[in-house]
Amino acid sequence: MQKVAVLRWGHRAFRDERLTTHLVLAARAFGASEFFLADVEDEKIKTTIERAVQQWGGPFAFKMGIPWREIVKDWKAKDGTVIHLTMYGENIQTSDVLQRIKTTRKDVLVIVGSQKVPSEFYKISDFNVAIGNQPHSECSSLAVFLDRFFEGKGLEKEFKNWRIKLTPDPHGKHVIKRDV
Amino acid sequence: MQKVAVLRWGHRAFRDERLTTHLVLAARAFGASEFFLADVEDEKIKTTIERAVQQWGGPFAFKMGIPWREIVKDWKAKDGTVIHLTMYGENIQTSDVLQRIKTTRKDVLVIVGSQKVPSEFYKISDFNVAIGNQPHSECSSLAVFLDRFFEGKGLEKEFKNWRIKLTPDPHGKHVIKRDV
Repeated sequence: MQKVAVLRWGHRAFRDERLTTHLVLAARAFGASEFFLADVEDEKIKTTIERAVQQWGGPFAFKMGIPWREIVKDWKAKDGTVIHLTMYGENIQTSDVLQRIKTTRKDVLVIVGSQKVPSEFYKISDFNVAIGNQPHSECSSLAVFLDRFFEGKGLEKEFKNWRIKLTPDPHGKHVIKRDV
Repeated sequence: MQKVAVLRWGHRAFRDERLTTHLVLAARAFGASEFFLADVEDEKIKTTIERAVQQWGGPFAFKMGIPWREIVKDWKAKDGTVIHLTMYGENIQTSDVLQRIKTTRKDVLVIVGSQKVPSEFYKISDFNVAIGNQPHSECSSLAVFLDRFFEGKGLEKEFKNWRIKLTPDPHGKHVIKRDV
């Protein structure tokens, strides 16, 4: 099974706090195993994510402050493939780009930028992938990419060491709690 | 073809501005035709969305300020079905809930809340649907719901009256502009 890590570029403290938090939670919920908040540190997000993993389970690694070039270089050195999510890229729906990514059988680093990204991203990435060629959100792009990449299986993943877990309920809330 | 509208509940001015904007853009990009910002008004979001539709095309309707009860009541009066996206609901991946929604053949109103929603939502909705039973984001939930509901077709939709359009490009940016 190909492993997926996410690299978030361009996070600005305060302004992007909630959006980046949503992005990290989406990465975890849809099956990624690792998240890099590149170049910057944000203790508040780190605390939120660590608490979420403690409550809802893991494993899920959150790292911050490493320069993006270093993360990409390391990933490539380990023979991983690099994907840049961008509305300008090959459309995941109308092209065969997802199939080509899977065929590599390599571990995947997904770069998620913000409004303006360095033009280098388009060149250093093995694939530039558009979750449709219309504007929407990093968060929706990442979720749909992962949902399609894992063919929906991300949503049935069983996490380990959870303290809270939900049992699907058609009309209310069914919460299971335990001490670990 | 079942039509999909989105109802956003619990928007708070300033604090939620970006997240709600991302949500509206995701609704449009993944194939919904209408968006209700319930109960409140937010001129800044309205302007952003109107500009996006003017640039990237439509049709896509954005309405705000209508009380959520009224929107739901009207929708049901027109024989539409109401879906509440919640992490507590039936898992879209492990249950047949999506199939049951499609089988109704009714137009769909998707309610997207925020952290704490009125417990009434669970009762007035015909379906409570979880995009996985783990915490993530309204934005990722809505996008994946729509992507699955439209079986990916939302991402190949051709909008009308666009002034900007992108041609998928594996390594750069290919933008088409026109006057309409």
